[in-house]
Amino acid sequence: MLADPMTAAVQTGCEMSDVRTSTKTTGEEIGLSERSNLMPASPIRKLVPYAEEAVRRGVTVYRLNIGQPDVRTPPEFLAAVRSFAEPVLAYGHSQGHPDLLATFSRYYKQVGLDVPPEQIQITTGGSEAILFALTTIANPGDEAIVFEPYYTNYTGFAVTAGVKLVPLATDPKKGYHLPPIEKIEEKITERTKAILICSPNNPTGTLLSREEMAAVADLAKRRGLFVLSDEVYREFCYEEKHTSILEFEEIADRAILLDSISKRYSACGARVGCLVSRNPKIMDAALRMGQARLCSPTIEQIAAARVMGLPESYYTALTAEYRARRDAVVDRFNQIPGCFCHKPSGAFYFMGTFPVDDIEDFCEWMLTRFSYENQTVMMAPGPGFYASPGSGKNQARIAYVLEVDKLMQAMEVLKHGVEEYKETH
Amino acid sequence: MLADPMTAAVQTGCEMSDVRTSTKTTGEEIGLSERSNLMPASPIRKLVPYAEEAVRRGVTVYRLNIGQPDVRTPPEFLAAVRSFAEPVLAYGHSQGHPDLLATFSRYYKQVGLDVPPEQIQITTGGSEAILFALTTIANPGDEAIVFEPYYTNYTGFAVTAGVKLVPLATDPKKGYHLPPIEKIEEKITERTKAILICSPNNPTGTLLSREEMAAVADLAKRRGLFVLSDEVYREFCYEEKHTSILEFEEIADRAILLDSISKRYSACGARVGCLVSRNPKIMDAALRMGQARLCSPTIEQIAAARVMGLPESYYTALTAEYRARRDAVVDRFNQIPGCFCHKPSGAFYFMGTFPVDDIEDFCEWMLTRFSYENQTVMMAPGPGFYASPGSGKNQARIAYVLEVDKLMQAMEVLKHGVEEYKETH
Repeated sequence: MLADPMTAAVQTGCEMSDVRTSTKTTGEEIGLSERSNLMPASPIRKLVPYAEEAVRRGVTVYRLNIGQPDVRTPPEFLAAVRSFAEPVLAYGHSQGHPDLLATFSRYYKQVGLDVPPEQIQITTGGSEAILFALTTIANPGDEAIVFEPYYTNYTGFAVTAGVKLVPLATDPKKGYHLPPIEKIEEKITERTKAILICSPNNPTGTLLSREEMAAVADLAKRRGLFVLSDEVYREFCYEEKHTSILEFEEIADRAILLDSISKRYSACGARVGCLVSRNPKIMDAALRMGQARLCSPTIEQIAAARVMGLPESYYTALTAEYRARRDAVVDRFNQIPGCFCHKPSGAFYFMGTFPVDDIEDFCEWMLTRFSYENQTVMMAPGPGFYASPGSGKNQARIAYVLEVDKLMQAMEVLKHGVEEYKETH
Repeated sequence: MLADPMTAAVQTGCEMSDVRTSTKTTGEEIGLSERSNLMPASPIRKLVPYAEEAVRRGVTVYRLNIGQPDVRTPPEFLAAVRSFAEPVLAYGHSQGHPDLLATFSRYYKQVGLDVPPEQIQITTGGSEAILFALTTIANPGDEAIVFEPYYTNYTGFAVTAGVKLVPLATDPKKGYHLPPIEKIEEKITERTKAILICSPNNPTGTLLSREEMAAVADLAKRRGLFVLSDEVYREFCYEEKHTSILEFEEIADRAILLDSISKRYSACGARVGCLVSRNPKIMDAALRMGQARLCSPTIEQIAAARVMGLPESYYTALTAEYRARRDAVVDRFNQIPGCFCHKPSGAFYFMGTFPVDDIEDFCEWMLTRFSYENQTVMMAPGPGFYASPGSGKNQARIAYVLEVDKLMQAMEVLKHGVEEYKETH
């Protein structure tokens, strides 16, 4: 099932330099939009040139900075790509390829959710699902409540849509679970349209309990809000069962599920996701948004339709592999003096707390100044996952997307890095 | 080079029914956004159920309603898809696959434009290029001037971005060329950020002259506006040479080229396009927008990179084919009593004027009540290409995307349709 992790890392274009750099500049003198200034540069990519320079020096870089699994894409997917035989690569349905809609529906049945095809809008990655959801429920200037730390790219789509994300911090000591419901309620203004949750969570790995989900649903019902629920890591739950927002009938008209095959099938480059809602008005608006961009890419949709029929055993093996990785990496991380993380119950990330004041400097130093036995570790600095200035400065996100022995080696290298950094700073 | 046109029409998912219908509904009681109400339903797709019903009755439907060419996708593209051999379908570069950037750059050189890779942002279809361009240069509430009739989907992206499109009519009798520059200038307000042009034009087929392009560039420079130039039909010019907005050095910092491989390579389902600008600030903002959605689909980008190296002869043959279709179809259309169209000089559409008061009714009638020798014709009603209420009611867009003999047959059928409709209405 596993590709060679080093090979996989090399293929991961997402963390390589683009032809031009992405330092954020201001376009004011030429009169660019305010949102083109607000649009964040990828916090993960800033370190890329340093990692590439380290590789050029001959240093092995353990890339724990992005959520690109090393797991092989299912052969069924790749076989479907290779057998594409249409003479004309024509436009597809705006709602999505009918086969893919049917297989998504079957997949949801497999995980206990009754979702007919008409409640599904195929999107170009989970990314487009976020954009469609925000534009469907919010006008420019409206607000959505998010819980810090949160997936950076929510900010990008909120900026595009002109929606203000209102952050509310979660506590590392409490495993990044949701704050008390009163705290959430305090953030509601007359512009608040939605609560945006992600479970299991990127970047914290936290799985929201059934009670937390129920409390969010209840709040949404009481206050007339929508709930946007990012559940792309559904398959990655290590102890408790996953709870979907779709299970709460009382907000059937206000719940929007955001989903993607990227992580589940190790097919991040396919850009196949979907938006699901029980509310026909939401689905109607989403379809019209889909019509504006005509269709999602045809070939990946056809291929994705093929893998959606994978047996239960595929998911079991996938979960077992990541559980083993989590167990190994989290224990080792917590043994590093001064480091701490709550054991995450889902996804394949954790937010680690470090004994440093400036994690950006530490992450850069790891790549530029440090190596242990000619190896180093690349992580995603915490501040990129916070909207509140000054937050996350002693945290970094670690993605356990390599095999166990590599992860163990990476933690050994990290331990030496932390010690040496503390001695010299 | 040509696939069987009837087969191609069947593959054209874009004009088939989605699982759910897309009648525009209001989401006010549930509190959906204003823009989810503003988002237009595809004007082309409304007729789809009628066409499907006609097919079920055994009627042959000549589908001249959408811009899905019947021309085969180049074998190089499909061969590249079939030889995709990576074990992990990983994230790609946010700016675009390096091979594709390089081949786009070479392609532009071929058409006389010097565009290095750093001036290119790969987008998921020309669609995403429109969205990125609008969000880069405009805030919610800002305005862009467009010329009616215009490509319907501009409206969808403008709604997503919260940008107001300000329409200015062009004259069928003058071949839908731009109005005098003073008329354009009258539409400029303090919220105007851009002029959006499309040449060769969808839906009119009009190629803007070098003088018209120069006048737009001059106006943009004088008034500090951006020019968004949709040039996806560049290859489809039948007499005069195409003029690109990038040729006007004086607005190098204000020109944004929107492009796509969809029509050029008959690869509409690939969703591969790009945004081009000489202005590094625009490119920086576009890259950050690209980072938010991580990457465009990998497989189609790799395949597109392969076809971009096609020889001049490919384009010559393509143009010759469409020129022959245009010559045949336009002459025949103008012979139908009461019908009129200006001979278009580019793209593969024309807007035909009909001797009817309600083109929507006529188009529906053609599919539901009429047939000639068991055949009928499907067209795109004019009003869908206008923002101004009441406009385009005697016009329809005809796409000449079938082989000459089929087009001739379609015009014969249309002639009988027009006659019979006039007699009975």
